[in-house]
Amino acid sequence: MYSIGIDLGGTNVAFGLVSEDGKLVRKESVATDRNATAEGLTEIMAKKTLEFIDEWKVPRKEIRSIGIGCPGACDNESGILILTVNLPFRYTNIREIFARFTDIPVYLGNDANCAALGEALFGGGKGAQTCLAITLGTGVGGGIIIDGKIYTGFNGVAGELGHMVVRKGGIKCGCGRRGCFEAYASATAVIRETKIAAKKHPESLINELCGGDMDKINAKTAFDAMRAGDKTGTALVKRYRKDLAEGIINYINIFQPEVILIGGGISKEGEGLLKPLRKYVYKFSYGAKMLPRTRIEKAVLGNDAGIIGAAMLS
Amino acid sequence: MYSIGIDLGGTNVAFGLVSEDGKLVRKESVATDRNATAEGLTEIMAKKTLEFIDEWKVPRKEIRSIGIGCPGACDNESGILILTVNLPFRYTNIREIFARFTDIPVYLGNDANCAALGEALFGGGKGAQTCLAITLGTGVGGGIIIDGKIYTGFNGVAGELGHMVVRKGGIKCGCGRRGCFEAYASATAVIRETKIAAKKHPESLINELCGGDMDKINAKTAFDAMRAGDKTGTALVKRYRKDLAEGIINYINIFQPEVILIGGGISKEGEGLLKPLRKYVYKFSYGAKMLPRTRIEKAVLGNDAGIIGAAMLS
Repeated sequence: MYSIGIDLGGTNVAFGLVSEDGKLVRKESVATDRNATAEGLTEIMAKKTLEFIDEWKVPRKEIRSIGIGCPGACDNESGILILTVNLPFRYTNIREIFARFTDIPVYLGNDANCAALGEALFGGGKGAQTCLAITLGTGVGGGIIIDGKIYTGFNGVAGELGHMVVRKGGIKCGCGRRGCFEAYASATAVIRETKIAAKKHPESLINELCGGDMDKINAKTAFDAMRAGDKTGTALVKRYRKDLAEGIINYINIFQPEVILIGGGISKEGEGLLKPLRKYVYKFSYGAKMLPRTRIEKAVLGNDAGIIGAAMLS
Repeated sequence: MYSIGIDLGGTNVAFGLVSEDGKLVRKESVATDRNATAEGLTEIMAKKTLEFIDEWKVPRKEIRSIGIGCPGACDNESGILILTVNLPFRYTNIREIFARFTDIPVYLGNDANCAALGEALFGGGKGAQTCLAITLGTGVGGGIIIDGKIYTGFNGVAGELGHMVVRKGGIKCGCGRRGCFEAYASATAVIRETKIAAKKHPESLINELCGGDMDKINAKTAFDAMRAGDKTGTALVKRYRKDLAEGIINYINIFQPEVILIGGGISKEGEGLLKPLRKYVYKFSYGAKMLPRTRIEKAVLGNDAGIIGAAMLS
């Protein structure tokens, strides 16, 4: 048996054929029609899904489900996409619209949550039943997996793991509060701090690495400077690791998950980031000296995680 | 049908007969034998349970289960009490020891989690399927209820809701970190801040209310001063409410539970505390302007919550 995983994005809609053991067998992508209505977009998704199933030459009875990772709040029970930020969906009954075209069961999940599910089951989590996925990108995204399923909260929008205040009165966050984890642990935060440090320390290698052009500083610059032995880069990375660790310890104390998966651009630093991070985390997280410890691992599926997770929805 | 709920404490062990609809029908308490071994204590619990069942004249086949709220980490799957802080249990197989005396099924839960379960199902939560219980006492305790069951994490000690850093580098906490929610939201924190403010503001009514004796300041003093129009008391309560609110918003952004229950000594302030708290929380919590909101209510079962929750373990 197979499932179809769909990753509904503001730019593209990706369709994948996923085997029961989480392998992405086939993948296609079409541009998102930004002029279409919510109903129109849903119809296109349904038609394209059936087209690809034919194209991939899979008998329809071999398709267990269609899962859609949605960029917003959705209710899998009713099949309704409640709200999206960059697309026109408002209480759109996706399941009902799909049912006009196919009787394959349709399930919905938030896109970040689907990525977390994919990673938990078939990526860095390798079958973990309880897992938090934390994505360190432009913002800090998250997903909570409990008993092998996405935890959505009662209104569908749980898992905003970036919007936990860790420094009351700190840096202003897009959510309206100050001092959110996102404001210290995102790639955006790393870039912001790297720029500040580069100005303050004209002797730092950072200024050389970006050729004197601040706009060329990215989330990797400070790590590169550190690796070359630069004092400013080393201090930046150390401080960043502590900020990241404090948030992760918070989440361990709350959830004690089997595994925490770190994804997003910054996770490319790999063990160079994770090894010292674990050391700090296990020093302070609750129970880490006496009880089994939460594993802290890198997310490995990249952009495919969302499609694979969507295919695993039920 | 009934269940037996046991609240195993360092001073007393309380036994309750609880009906299916969460009513505590009978209750007894015996002093905890501080000289007994873990096995000895468990045997006493088992024997006492059977004695009380006889005394209460309930046919044994009317007893569905025995649930034990334990002051530490336990594993309900294996029936093992892993670790307690103030009692001698270390990987003690409670289920096995009880089985020497009775074939009634025995379940284990952490005591704070049992209290959360009791409150969620039959107290302030009234049937809530997802619920966080936050106890504002000497520390800040917590319990997480998901799908009507206690969420324990993979190692049994999830739900340390007081040990989330909200002010990095803040006040030193007993857990080894700085700036934990507990250090700002507990009754201990209120008393600490009230004492500091009283010294700083000799004109404040607080000094009168405690008769000039700082040791007589309790968690209610600042609230009493506020109610009498005292400026220092009002400022203290406002700041406390904000600290409490920030932690609660964090938990809503993470869990989006149906209800958050506030218990412990400070919850006695009731709506005077909760009404302004809700206003602040809903201003900043994720989705509160568009989606159904987490209810914030007072815990109502007091010390019985743990017994009732233990009886509901399965």
